[in-house]
Amino acid sequence: MAETSNATAPTQFIVTKLEKYAYRRFGTGSGLLCLQHFTGTLDNWDPAVTDPLASGREVILFESAGLGRSTGEVPTSIPGMAAHALAFVDALGLTQVDILGFSLGGMVAQQIALERPSLARKMLLIATAPEGGEDIMHMEKPELKKITDDPNLPGLQRLVKLFFAPSATSQAAGQAFIARLAQRKQDREPLSGPNVAKAQIAAFRAWEAFTGERFAKLRKISQPCLVVNGVFDNMIPVRNSYMLSEHLPNAMLITYPDAGHGSLFQFHESFVRQASLFLGSEDLWPS
Amino acid sequence: MAETSNATAPTQFIVTKLEKYAYRRFGTGSGLLCLQHFTGTLDNWDPAVTDPLASGREVILFESAGLGRSTGEVPTSIPGMAAHALAFVDALGLTQVDILGFSLGGMVAQQIALERPSLARKMLLIATAPEGGEDIMHMEKPELKKITDDPNLPGLQRLVKLFFAPSATSQAAGQAFIARLAQRKQDREPLSGPNVAKAQIAAFRAWEAFTGERFAKLRKISQPCLVVNGVFDNMIPVRNSYMLSEHLPNAMLITYPDAGHGSLFQFHESFVRQASLFLGSEDLWPS
Repeated sequence: MAETSNATAPTQFIVTKLEKYAYRRFGTGSGLLCLQHFTGTLDNWDPAVTDPLASGREVILFESAGLGRSTGEVPTSIPGMAAHALAFVDALGLTQVDILGFSLGGMVAQQIALERPSLARKMLLIATAPEGGEDIMHMEKPELKKITDDPNLPGLQRLVKLFFAPSATSQAAGQAFIARLAQRKQDREPLSGPNVAKAQIAAFRAWEAFTGERFAKLRKISQPCLVVNGVFDNMIPVRNSYMLSEHLPNAMLITYPDAGHGSLFQFHESFVRQASLFLGSEDLWPS
Repeated sequence: MAETSNATAPTQFIVTKLEKYAYRRFGTGSGLLCLQHFTGTLDNWDPAVTDPLASGREVILFESAGLGRSTGEVPTSIPGMAAHALAFVDALGLTQVDILGFSLGGMVAQQIALERPSLARKMLLIATAPEGGEDIMHMEKPELKKITDDPNLPGLQRLVKLFFAPSATSQAAGQAFIARLAQRKQDREPLSGPNVAKAQIAAFRAWEAFTGERFAKLRKISQPCLVVNGVFDNMIPVRNSYMLSEHLPNAMLITYPDAGHGSLFQFHESFVRQASLFLGSEDLWPS
């Protein structure tokens, strides 16, 4: 029987026209391509989200260039990252997938939808921002810098502080989240170094800038989209999700209370239910 | 067999310590008290929303004082309206209900939750605003005034223009909506006159004002809330829904694309699905 958990699914590799990428795929059915957040590797996908989503579809976790055991350099732009994702799906022979883009991954998803509309059937855009968004991953902000600079916080505890709201309930959900990430014992990816962060931050800065009419590109993304965020996201504030849902022609927005950047992990039961409903229903928007 | 449609459910009357109120109730199970919008009567509830919600619960449509065949004067404040709703539920002997408040009704629902927290189990706050909200029902705005002043628009066609977005798809959904309202042929309520509008507008103006810390009252509303709106609502703009979901401690927000004030009628299938999920699930928020 095939593995259907990100705690145990083997890491695979594929050589493409651009780079050799690490990836994992599990579940059967139509594909859900998952694009990861700032500095995250394959090991940062929460089994509480990926595993139930793999019931009825195939979850495909992609490691972009320069992350984990994927070769190459981390691009300094979102289009550069989209090129790697497209090289990956082409090498797998996939012609249509749903896309779950979390944070940085949600920007790559939008770029893919613009460059190759036929590839993306529906998109989940989680804790992300449009081109021309605001306050995107300014890690130099005092409230973020005090977390990343804290010498007493081990890496995963930093993630809890960064991805979850300050409340006791949200922090407890964060501890449960990192315990789930630790379920994978073998065949793990190397952690990202500072060069990864530096290149990805450059891509965020380029994405904040825009030329021409703001948000005009969003009108060209006609795919059904489910936009999701926590109302207390400090890394990519929720108003960026409002911009997406107000300007994408076919987007439903869901926000969660008492939650930050990692709302999908905190409210994983609700998120999986909503994502499954969205991906499964052909007629969410009868109009 | 009991009637389970707002197209056919008989209007009932109850004498209370304050006034005699018109109401309708249908379906069986725990109660869902429905509080109506600006100038709306019992006949303005869309059967496509009320009827499927009555599967598994009892839908209770309330006509506040001075509307339809309910006696008394229309209050000029939200607390005044909440007093009528409380007199009504007391006369019916209801001690706990879920509340669906649409537009004006959503403000009354918030007031009820503050005054008698034990009454409200969960609340659906649709196309509404917090106390201290912005741009609430300014019917003198050019974009609204040109609709209400148009002598060539019959009343229900005005509703289509006011409640739905300008797109062809949304306007078509509006025509379908008013056709459903017309399904009720007998036992209809009298239309609201200008005195109703005048008093309710006064209540909106009072609700926009606030004293002390803005939105502080919202923190006292601990009930699970589902906040819903269309992104193109011109009557109570969607940013009021953002204020609600950012400041209510336990609120999930859903917004719909290509939709205005009447998003619940345009996306009635999705709305009913989401409302049923919200009202039926005890653990939407595990935290």
